[in-house]
Amino acid sequence: MKDSHCTTIPLLRGPVPLSHLFLGSFLRDGDSAVDATCGNGNDTLLLARLVGASGHVRGFDIQQQAIAETGRRLAEAGLSGRVTLLQKGHEELAEHVEGPVQAVLFNLGYCPGGDRSIITRPETTGMALEQALVMLAPGGIVIVTVYPGHSGGGEERSAVETWAAGLDPRVFHCWRMGQTNVTPTAPYLLLVQKVP
Amino acid sequence: MKDSHCTTIPLLRGPVPLSHLFLGSFLRDGDSAVDATCGNGNDTLLLARLVGASGHVRGFDIQQQAIAETGRRLAEAGLSGRVTLLQKGHEELAEHVEGPVQAVLFNLGYCPGGDRSIITRPETTGMALEQALVMLAPGGIVIVTVYPGHSGGGEERSAVETWAAGLDPRVFHCWRMGQTNVTPTAPYLLLVQKVP
Repeated sequence: MKDSHCTTIPLLRGPVPLSHLFLGSFLRDGDSAVDATCGNGNDTLLLARLVGASGHVRGFDIQQQAIAETGRRLAEAGLSGRVTLLQKGHEELAEHVEGPVQAVLFNLGYCPGGDRSIITRPETTGMALEQALVMLAPGGIVIVTVYPGHSGGGEERSAVETWAAGLDPRVFHCWRMGQTNVTPTAPYLLLVQKVP
Repeated sequence: MKDSHCTTIPLLRGPVPLSHLFLGSFLRDGDSAVDATCGNGNDTLLLARLVGASGHVRGFDIQQQAIAETGRRLAEAGLSGRVTLLQKGHEELAEHVEGPVQAVLFNLGYCPGGDRSIITRPETTGMALEQALVMLAPGGIVIVTVYPGHSGGGEERSAVETWAAGLDPRVFHCWRMGQTNVTPTAPYLLLVQKVP
């Protein structure tokens, strides 16, 4: 039972706070997590807080600007020590991550504030998702935030949804979470959990 | 950051644990909650734990057997004092609940282990949902677990989904959460939050 003073009520205005609610429920001190698309470091920062001083986060982004901004925010928060940033595509996830990990995050599409022509692609996203599932600890989760609205987004969405529908339900629980009363191209979440 | 010993990892095998994860994140000591379909008391019990000794739960069910079983489980857990049970249809919610409340739960369909011909109906469910939204505190949530698989379930599902799609997004965040890799008639969740 929570003390009314200790945490604020989550406000589920979009996929980011929803994703953060799940991460807060699943991650513990000492855990390992991967941010497969650091972008501006918003999620990387949260992962670093949640795994605690004895945990570790690996963050990936192909864009130097994203790695730099993420690094800056982590340093500002005093959390650099628990994070390794790699300017690499997430199709190389398995080469750089020693599993098992408790959470892997993907934000598909373009980097907010960045070059909108640099977007995640179905082929590399697909490879990275498969690698993420292999490295998950029992009970661990992959969260994918899908942004269908940009050019190329619809194609990627279809590929990811086909993948999600085809997962073996004895091995993975897989949820799609979207808002019912907004535009159909609004971003939404896929949450995959490896059955312990 | 959670201590690894203090709580177990949620296992999202179906809508019940997912619903319980949200309730654990949203409810605080001293809150008020409503179980609009007590059934066997599983959710009522959790709500009673989460609102603490200074909180209160009102539980509704039209079936005497459900009220009795829920009462029995609450007594066994020593939580009867913080719960009022009413053998009434949830279309009477507003008459018996003084708002505001932080959470209202609905499990649609039939009572597990009970008479499968006694099911929730679109008309009364619709009235109850509208009343639930009015009584919600800012930031409060309604969680509806929809079971489309039984006779009459498909019709109720359509009515509830139409209602969810029509909610004003400036007033309510509304999420649909279903599993991607199971039968299309599997139960799923709608979560509505009143924008503070």
